[in-house]
Amino acid sequence: MTRTVYVNGDYLPEDQAKVSIFDRGFLFADGVYEVTSVLDGKLIDFAGHAKRLQRSLDELQMANPVTEEELLAIHRELVRLNDIDEGLIYLQITRGAADRDFVFPKDPVPTIVLFTQSKPGLAENPTAKTGLKVISIEDLRWGRRDIKTVQLLYPSMGKMMAKAAGADDAWMVEDGHVTEGTSNNAYIVKGNTIVTRNLGTEILHGITRAAVLRFAREAQMVVEERPFSLDEVQAADEAFITSASAFVMPVVEMDGAPIGSGAPGKVTARLREIYLDEMRKAAV
Amino acid sequence: MTRTVYVNGDYLPEDQAKVSIFDRGFLFADGVYEVTSVLDGKLIDFAGHAKRLQRSLDELQMANPVTEEELLAIHRELVRLNDIDEGLIYLQITRGAADRDFVFPKDPVPTIVLFTQSKPGLAENPTAKTGLKVISIEDLRWGRRDIKTVQLLYPSMGKMMAKAAGADDAWMVEDGHVTEGTSNNAYIVKGNTIVTRNLGTEILHGITRAAVLRFAREAQMVVEERPFSLDEVQAADEAFITSASAFVMPVVEMDGAPIGSGAPGKVTARLREIYLDEMRKAAV
Repeated sequence: MTRTVYVNGDYLPEDQAKVSIFDRGFLFADGVYEVTSVLDGKLIDFAGHAKRLQRSLDELQMANPVTEEELLAIHRELVRLNDIDEGLIYLQITRGAADRDFVFPKDPVPTIVLFTQSKPGLAENPTAKTGLKVISIEDLRWGRRDIKTVQLLYPSMGKMMAKAAGADDAWMVEDGHVTEGTSNNAYIVKGNTIVTRNLGTEILHGITRAAVLRFAREAQMVVEERPFSLDEVQAADEAFITSASAFVMPVVEMDGAPIGSGAPGKVTARLREIYLDEMRKAAV
Repeated sequence: MTRTVYVNGDYLPEDQAKVSIFDRGFLFADGVYEVTSVLDGKLIDFAGHAKRLQRSLDELQMANPVTEEELLAIHRELVRLNDIDEGLIYLQITRGAADRDFVFPKDPVPTIVLFTQSKPGLAENPTAKTGLKVISIEDLRWGRRDIKTVQLLYPSMGKMMAKAAGADDAWMVEDGHVTEGTSNNAYIVKGNTIVTRNLGTEILHGITRAAVLRFAREAQMVVEERPFSLDEVQAADEAFITSASAFVMPVVEMDGAPIGSGAPGKVTARLREIYLDEMRKAAV
């Protein structure tokens, strides 16, 4: 089966889905994106992603070619056309096509692209029972990581460095402190306290992060939002990541050394359970 | 007249020149580029650009879909088809199209795209007589600026910040020292000494920079390759930039204050003259 994707108003077979070589997403990485999970054929935290999308666009003075209502309708139509039960919907908006110039074009027509990725077993991911191995790498990304741009080459290189080291992912470190994973937010647990980097321009403002921290506080866990060091990771009882597609996923090893018992921890498992339960209920 | 551009082996009208929405250049900024100037219908320092292209590709473990000889032939054919006397040839190679994954695809087919921009008066640019006004901005780019990737959103934002401030361009500053301009290398002149940032991961290894420094040394000028501060810019006799499309261009104002006399300097003018003379002779 070939996917049906969405490009600038049209639903097309994926092999016909193209953009101009003059698109500023292609020439300047002048574009932003969101990834929304689908469980039971429904969208997880769509409103959160739509809100962050608008923030990214606003930060870059980029026009939004669709209303939130239209965006929801496109997401749902793609779920229907591609018969997605569990999976992801990827959305990208760029400033549009124009002759190449560092100066933003006047009145450009934004490009909007969406496609699905079917991922059966997304919620029952067996890795939740075994955990991820991560390595630490220097954070070489640009300084505005709070804007969700497609400048993803370094995170992609980081994933390759992790693979080469026999690990699953990399946590990025700046000035001795962890910022985040290559495509996820990073957490450690010590006793009843969950520690994760505070919001700022240094990390992405994770939609899943916001929900998980809310659920943790509701469950009477202590949450500290502050930078933490690799030493603190090594001394932690548990570690985990959150992202729209991994939800809450345990991390059991850092740079070859086990974290805590070296097995997924109870706090992580509990947060994953709460998150999936609550988000399934609220899915649209 | 519509341009004829080159996409993966085909010469096409520009409005038919497209790439897949799954191209990693579009989704991950996983691509590199070069810009070569054309004067008198001939290519300026083509060999230098071909060599740097190969270095960028090697750094990213990306395949080169063409030999240097083929690349030269494509450049020349585009000059001919578009009747370019003075202008630019833009070249971009990406890792190619694949379903979206941070992990590099196995055996991808690289995408290669070239197009021309006609720029009559490129060599006789009147700005060479009046000079550029620049502002200083914080350098927020990623840490591997020596690789010429399409992650150009911040340089593009920098150009817009300059425009908003009534200036022409921005010089980026990191740890109190100038790295480079948004799309060019930066220089100051004090007495008979030319100062420009030393090579490293902090700046692009300019092809024009290499040629200009060689000509400067041949002309018995003193060249210091080291970081320099904004205070040194304010105290300089002259300042200028180099790039493949601007060649050598004077900078006469920084953050609203004149540099030296506030007019283009003699060293800059001399270097521009030597550069254009020598490169025209060596053009292919």
